[in-house]
Amino acid sequence: MVVELICVGTELLLGNIVNTNAAFLSEQCAALGLSNYYQTVVGDNEERLKGVMKTAMERSDIVILSGGLGPTKDDLTKETAAALLGKKLKLHEPSKKKIQDFFEKRNITPTENNWKQAMAPEGAIVVENENGTAPGFIIEEGEKALILLPGPPNELLPMFEKSIKPYLKEKEPGIILSQTIKICGLGESYVETMIQDMIEKQENPTIAPYAKTGEVHLRATARAKSEKEAKKLLKPMTKELKSRIGGYIYTTEENVTLEMAVIDLLKNNRLTLTIAESCTGGMIVSRLINVQGASDVVREGLVTYSNKAKRKYLGVKKGTLAKKGAVSEETAKEMAKGGVFFTKSDVCIATTGIAGPGGGSEEKPVGLVYIGCNVCGKITVKKYQFGGGREKIRQSATAAALTLLRQCVLEHYSKVTFGKEKKEK
Amino acid sequence: MVVELICVGTELLLGNIVNTNAAFLSEQCAALGLSNYYQTVVGDNEERLKGVMKTAMERSDIVILSGGLGPTKDDLTKETAAALLGKKLKLHEPSKKKIQDFFEKRNITPTENNWKQAMAPEGAIVVENENGTAPGFIIEEGEKALILLPGPPNELLPMFEKSIKPYLKEKEPGIILSQTIKICGLGESYVETMIQDMIEKQENPTIAPYAKTGEVHLRATARAKSEKEAKKLLKPMTKELKSRIGGYIYTTEENVTLEMAVIDLLKNNRLTLTIAESCTGGMIVSRLINVQGASDVVREGLVTYSNKAKRKYLGVKKGTLAKKGAVSEETAKEMAKGGVFFTKSDVCIATTGIAGPGGGSEEKPVGLVYIGCNVCGKITVKKYQFGGGREKIRQSATAAALTLLRQCVLEHYSKVTFGKEKKEK
Repeated sequence: MVVELICVGTELLLGNIVNTNAAFLSEQCAALGLSNYYQTVVGDNEERLKGVMKTAMERSDIVILSGGLGPTKDDLTKETAAALLGKKLKLHEPSKKKIQDFFEKRNITPTENNWKQAMAPEGAIVVENENGTAPGFIIEEGEKALILLPGPPNELLPMFEKSIKPYLKEKEPGIILSQTIKICGLGESYVETMIQDMIEKQENPTIAPYAKTGEVHLRATARAKSEKEAKKLLKPMTKELKSRIGGYIYTTEENVTLEMAVIDLLKNNRLTLTIAESCTGGMIVSRLINVQGASDVVREGLVTYSNKAKRKYLGVKKGTLAKKGAVSEETAKEMAKGGVFFTKSDVCIATTGIAGPGGGSEEKPVGLVYIGCNVCGKITVKKYQFGGGREKIRQSATAAALTLLRQCVLEHYSKVTFGKEKKEK
Repeated sequence: MVVELICVGTELLLGNIVNTNAAFLSEQCAALGLSNYYQTVVGDNEERLKGVMKTAMERSDIVILSGGLGPTKDDLTKETAAALLGKKLKLHEPSKKKIQDFFEKRNITPTENNWKQAMAPEGAIVVENENGTAPGFIIEEGEKALILLPGPPNELLPMFEKSIKPYLKEKEPGIILSQTIKICGLGESYVETMIQDMIEKQENPTIAPYAKTGEVHLRATARAKSEKEAKKLLKPMTKELKSRIGGYIYTTEENVTLEMAVIDLLKNNRLTLTIAESCTGGMIVSRLINVQGASDVVREGLVTYSNKAKRKYLGVKKGTLAKKGAVSEETAKEMAKGGVFFTKSDVCIATTGIAGPGGGSEEKPVGLVYIGCNVCGKITVKKYQFGGGREKIRQSATAAALTLLRQCVLEHYSKVTFGKEKKEK
């Protein structure tokens, strides 16, 4: 079955945003075993949009559109699709109700254009949007289907996961099963070298690496007639990967993030955590608190950005700051030590570094970060050198901190050992 | 003049990489005053590539292709373009020499397929690649042109800057200038209602709204013969927007973010800030610290996720937590009060809310957030109800906190007043 993507939006044509929706949707469709030969970006222009839709409907089985479902006059994806397929727009009561509730809750009077989002093409399946007021639509036309999704990624992604994926799975009955293996603490090229032979002789299942900030994900994908058969194909490959990569694999679940794995690990060992952040300034604690139930583990987080705060909250010595500097192995060590001592928690992860763009020197360049981890009194400090801009450096340091935290707890409690960290950019 | 983009590569169709080339090229073309109506992604398949090229040549003046210029059999952009235009491929001596030098320097014998990169379509302008072995090409066909660029961004970007931009500038002597207006504290549809008449009669400059989490951006774009003329066209529109939207506009600079505007505002008033976060747990401080020079304003940040931490660091009363609950107007108020008192800062922004998915009740549903702001003793507390999942709620609360902080400081120091917050999702 052939799927085609159309992303609608002038901001894409103007280069104001990068088309991450297309990357997400194509990755998902590939994982579902759907072929994708064309992707098009077109602006909020009725005539051109209609032309592109028509071409896509002719040459592909399923056309997924993103964008242009908002309340403004500019948004005309739904209207154009309906016109192309000769369908009328009708009021969809549940959507109207949802919009009403949304505004009532906020004590705001909706403007006239908000009601536009309650209209649905006749006969379309209306797909609920849990993160916005614009519903999605599946319009079936014989064997073919047009799928309309909202443009904002935080609406599109969950809608696809929850409603579109199951729909597409049913359409493509041969089964594609994927197994994700998520790795932290090893760089992409290093992982690739470890599995080079598997990549070279891959057939079914296939295997592909994806680099994320501070992580590498592997996806093994099997194509088979039944789920049982696909699982059977995947099993030996997953086993082989686990035996090669070992403890660096933090999960084999698609929906588990590194922060979830860390929270789980701490919770299972009944450990409480204090986060003491300087250069990462809230990024680590923010990722951890994104995990539901983080409150069992994270009682407090301290952003000790100034030297004064490092002394006040963590007891870092004046002399250490003066002699070694705020960005030093010693400061990271004292932060991790004080973090446990002053907050009476079991574990502390502490970061200090130079996020840039200013503040670097030859001896301590921008991107230099020390991360200290204190697990019940045993303190480990590691030195890192990250590349990229301020935000990228902070993100890399955050991922490294979560990775180090995980490794230290595992070494302490599960006797798992980790080699020297193998990393590339 | 109309330009069209075609990005060639199976890795784009599989979602292995995000199409940053398209974003770069479209932004560049927009800045050069070229219109762009279509972007297509197609795989390394001769027939489909030829079809896409043909369509593009028919409807646009300039077609820019990226990718498929490598040495392997898969790479067939140049061959397909030559075939479409009925041109032969001929050996290009300087390219051959360059490849020879490249391999000699590295003491490697080139393989047969490397010489493929020395072939050029008859009559094409060969564009030197300073960062790789694949040259680019400009093939002119009457008034139209086909521009072939290598796929790797580190080759494409410099080649475009150095050779393609001057070529396009000559082709399109006009200019496009954009003015961004960034707004916080007002919802997208509300903003649109405010400027409905301007959107309806837009011509040159055009105007378009973009919704971001907790923000609305407007972009006014003028087309003119010179920069001076474009500026003259934009000026009255910007003035009109400022007079209608007033203090809700936090910047008219493309590169300024809300957190930058907040840091700047505090810095200009010589104010220090403490961030006391419960439900947003590090998100606010993390955004603020992303701003270079945030250290002048943000000395520390406290993530007081547990009741205990709220009492210990902020002096929230036991009785308040017991009687009113952690998520209440009173707790937010005491957090904001204690944040200033215990850290001796001038301003404190404090959040407490229910991020979900669990923990909600009829009285206090998921998404309920109280934000307190203390500016030199004057405390404002606002109640919010956000929608979406845990992350979205936290992001919305973060944007709302930055907005409230900005408004409170402006009301206190600049006597700017803000009406009742008008918001939709």
